Amino acid sequence: MYKYVLKIKCSDAKGLIYKISNVLYKNDLNIEKNSEYVDNENRKFFFRARLDGTIDTDKIKDELQLEMPKDAKITLTKKVKKQIVVLATRESHCLGDILLKHDSDELNADVLCVVSNHDELRPLCERFGIKYHFIASDNLKRVEHEEKVLEVLGNYKIDFIILAKYMRILSKNFVSEYKQKIVNIHHSFLPAFVGANPYKQAYKRGVKIIGATAHFVNNNLDEGPIIAQDVIGVNHEQSWRDMQKAGKNVEKTVLSNALDLVFNDRIFVHQNKTIIF
Amino acid sequence: MYKYVLKIKCSDAKGLIYKISNVLYKNDLNIEKNSEYVDNENRKFFFRARLDGTIDTDKIKDELQLEMPKDAKITLTKKVKKQIVVLATRESHCLGDILLKHDSDELNADVLCVVSNHDELRPLCERFGIKYHFIASDNLKRVEHEEKVLEVLGNYKIDFIILAKYMRILSKNFVSEYKQKIVNIHHSFLPAFVGANPYKQAYKRGVKIIGATAHFVNNNLDEGPIIAQDVIGVNHEQSWRDMQKAGKNVEKTVLSNALDLVFNDRIFVHQNKTIIF
Amino acid sequence: MYKYVLKIKCSDAKGLIYKISNVLYKNDLNIEKNSEYVDNENRKFFFRARLDGTIDTDKIKDELQLEMPKDAKITLTKKVKKQIVVLATRESHCLGDILLKHDSDELNADVLCVVSNHDELRPLCERFGIKYHFIASDNLKRVEHEEKVLEVLGNYKIDFIILAKYMRILSKNFVSEYKQKIVNIHHSFLPAFVGANPYKQAYKRGVKIIGATAHFVNNNLDEGPIIAQDVIGVNHEQSWRDMQKAGKNVEKTVLSNALDLVFNDRIFVHQNKTIIF
Amino acid sequence: MYKYVLKIKCSDAKGLIYKISNVLYKNDLNIEKNSEYVDNENRKFFFRARLDGTIDTDKIKDELQLEMPKDAKITLTKKVKKQIVVLATRESHCLGDILLKHDSDELNADVLCVVSNHDELRPLCERFGIKYHFIASDNLKRVEHEEKVLEVLGNYKIDFIILAKYMRILSKNFVSEYKQKIVNIHHSFLPAFVGANPYKQAYKRGVKIIGATAHFVNNNLDEGPIIAQDVIGVNHEQSWRDMQKAGKNVEKTVLSNALDLVFNDRIFVHQNKTIIF
Repeated sequence: MYKYVLKIKCSDAKGLIYKISNVLYKNDLNIEKNSEYVDNENRKFFFRARLDGTIDTDKIKDELQLEMPKDAKITLTKKVKKQIVVLATRESHCLGDILLKHDSDELNADVLCVVSNHDELRPLCERFGIKYHFIASDNLKRVEHEEKVLEVLGNYKIDFIILAKYMRILSKNFVSEYKQKIVNIHHSFLPAFVGANPYKQAYKRGVKIIGATAHFVNNNLDEGPIIAQDVIGVNHEQSWRDMQKAGKNVEKTVLSNALDLVFNDRIFVHQNKTIIF
Repeated sequence: MYKYVLKIKCSDAKGLIYKISNVLYKNDLNIEKNSEYVDNENRKFFFRARLDGTIDTDKIKDELQLEMPKDAKITLTKKVKKQIVVLATRESHCLGDILLKHDSDELNADVLCVVSNHDELRPLCERFGIKYHFIASDNLKRVEHEEKVLEVLGNYKIDFIILAKYMRILSKNFVSEYKQKIVNIHHSFLPAFVGANPYKQAYKRGVKIIGATAHFVNNNLDEGPIIAQDVIGVNHEQSWRDMQKAGKNVEKTVLSNALDLVFNDRIFVHQNKTIIF
Repeated sequence: MYKYVLKIKCSDAKGLIYKISNVLYKNDLNIEKNSEYVDNENRKFFFRARLDGTIDTDKIKDELQLEMPKDAKITLTKKVKKQIVVLATRESHCLGDILLKHDSDELNADVLCVVSNHDELRPLCERFGIKYHFIASDNLKRVEHEEKVLEVLGNYKIDFIILAKYMRILSKNFVSEYKQKIVNIHHSFLPAFVGANPYKQAYKRGVKIIGATAHFVNNNLDEGPIIAQDVIGVNHEQSWRDMQKAGKNVEKTVLSNALDLVFNDRIFVHQNKTIIF
Repeated sequence: MYKYVLKIKCSDAKGLIYKISNVLYKNDLNIEKNSEYVDNENRKFFFRARLDGTIDTDKIKDELQLEMPKDAKITLTKKVKKQIVVLATRESHCLGDILLKHDSDELNADVLCVVSNHDELRPLCERFGIKYHFIASDNLKRVEHEEKVLEVLGNYKIDFIILAKYMRILSKNFVSEYKQKIVNIHHSFLPAFVGANPYKQAYKRGVKIIGATAHFVNNNLDEGPIIAQDVIGVNHEQSWRDMQKAGKNVEKTVLSNALDLVFNDRIFVHQNKTIIF
């Protein structure tokens, strides 16, 4: 089983694979799997390899940096569990799925705590022995509430923040504090039905499929880089509440699939899109 | 095998099923299958039955009309092949699929002719012995071109017009001439990516699924009642042209499924949605 | 919202819908929705209606019985939560999903207890305050172990037994005790990969899709009436353990969908198949 | 756009990527994309690259052969249209789809001729100007009929034989003549419903999904390496003929997807499985 993940993003040029594999070969590293992609339109090169063996990561990175184009961004990270905080509101299905997988050690992450603007989910978290921070938003301006949330988050060393049906829009300031570290699950197949009440929108439009989208959060509502999507069929007999109920299994599965990719360092973000190896 | 389709749409009231089945029973009709749906929000009742036997359709309709609420719209139609005209532009996959199914008698419709604003698809139509009307749009205003198309269509007795990747927007006037008789295939999972070049839009947005939507045409571009939708997965390696190619099989399958429903009288349209039995 | 479910199964005959709706209409019952299906091959009629209002169920049943063919099996049941027991072994994903939905009152059933041949799932059940019976099978013959399980089950009034990845084959005797009351989730798209280790079988065969099947249990292993199925794509990079991991989300979703149908009285079983309204 | 495809299959060893990319780099070749996979269980290495530039293929292959393990099988083929023959029986949907794509130059193959044991599909082929060989099987033993077919095939230089719903089982002898060159579409999600009448089998079993499988043909009926599979949902209302009709779109789409992979040299076959890049 691999112990390190090497990721390289740089301008495309001839011989990059040769140069990378040369460095790895000379250092006697075992490459379990490598993947590469060239964005021909933007002349960008993306590379990921899973490495085994005992590694002097600084040495390898230095040697690679010398061989790669000057704009190369190289990361060589040990495979460790990510440290995550989950934000949620009232719905339990996505949070519950995360807690279950965490409990059975299938998540590849440690859940540090759960933060919510409501108190309903406290018993669920306590069942699993997870610290619960209830930060009410009543009578608070968005920025005031966010400051309180940020203060709590400041107490943790966080790799990723998971919005597991967190029903509040994050400000630019909040997002910039955790750039490309926030994963959201949106209850529609984006870009259809951005914003509030996508199931009502879907019902009103009379679509025959509904879906869910997991994406990184950026400054524009529901417009961040998409990680995973899926859909299920619906029909005229289903009210928007029926759709909402049917959508829950899709939401949690899509989020679960996205978290697997995120927590295993399988994603590059480039020009508001994800490249997934 | 059934020979007639009975469709009723009216305000909801108690005992409607009893009253309808009473009329049918007294007339000794064999009901092969019936389906009903009540839109509780709008208090509307929808009913469809497939009937066998020798039927005096006027008599049955009169008897039903007496029993039903005053706003009841009742149709009792013999099961016959629909008469259709196909409009296309340059792409052959949807048109070709229709012609193939027509050729092997799997379409439940007669293709009267094909009309196109380009001449590329003529050889394909001629292979199948289908009359081809090439009506160039060069140097014509939209309304002028449409008048020429309408003139040709006027020579046929048409049940449905199928837009098999017809790359022109129809005017209000055109649509009102063939109200709820025009079926379009749009190459995205609506309401995402309305309008031109949905595959380019999908590529740019970085979605992980693409799809197709068959819908009745109304006065608002790509906003008519949806009949059928489906999606396939895509990934970062696919250019928009790759997506376009991959999407063709979905487009023709979704259109084919929609036409099956349309040609078998299985659809009600109500408040810009379809109810499908 | 409906309060009763009426189900009728009988030989097909003319006028059945008329006769049923006549009885319901005369008794001033509000039919929220009815569904029917005729198996033409076997001349069988199936009917289900959701009813609202105050009902003298015995009176209605008697009146219906008089009108229907002699072989009619009529049930008219109040909509109440089903009483269920879950059998599991070591894997937590299906059981956990059930407990989560139970906890958030989305299951339409009461989980009376969990029975397992291992002790690993005890902490999970205790988190949710669910009674856990560990009945070891070591050194016991199948029949001896089953007797112990049956003894425990005998203490409960059970509507359905859910096999949530219960890795033991049930004997004829056990199945006959709970005829059509046992729902199993099998980790393949049946009838492919019956029996042990379907993911290993799937890996070995090199399939490009894997899936899951929820079904009622009968006397033949994995051959009972199928309730729900779904699949996901796999590829050559996935080991059988990867498939097993990927399959978990499908398994629990398929089981969840099946339980929704079962607990809402939406299923008829006929000739080893399900008819689902 | 790439002009050559390099494929290498050999025992796994350290530094293979380095050695391959070294040869390609020294020869100043432009690698458009490379993919690799290591079968850890069997210690086998698989590599595919799309190359651009002017290539002395023999020189490159020789240089690679020197660097690779001794068991390396290296192919470096120019990207050209495959030469194919289609075998069919009576059903037109898969054949028609191939002819349509051939006609609009979307197939990446030349259809040399169609061979059938019936004469029904002749008009369809003649519409597209494709030579049709009707070889009746009446009163012939399997081997006698096959000899006649093989005799006709012997007149063509064939890369692949496509069984587009060819309803006859091929003998070992026939298969060995065209080893790994025969692609079949089977109308079920294999390994479920091997052999005759899979839709009848599916109907009888009461499955909730049906599907199709494209695979290379080997000596065991429906057991060859699987290339592509897909499914659609079905329900109790559908007779086996309904399923057969609904399955046609899946069959032709699955076959179409498989042919894309085959004709673009994207497949390795190893231990009765496909590795697809």
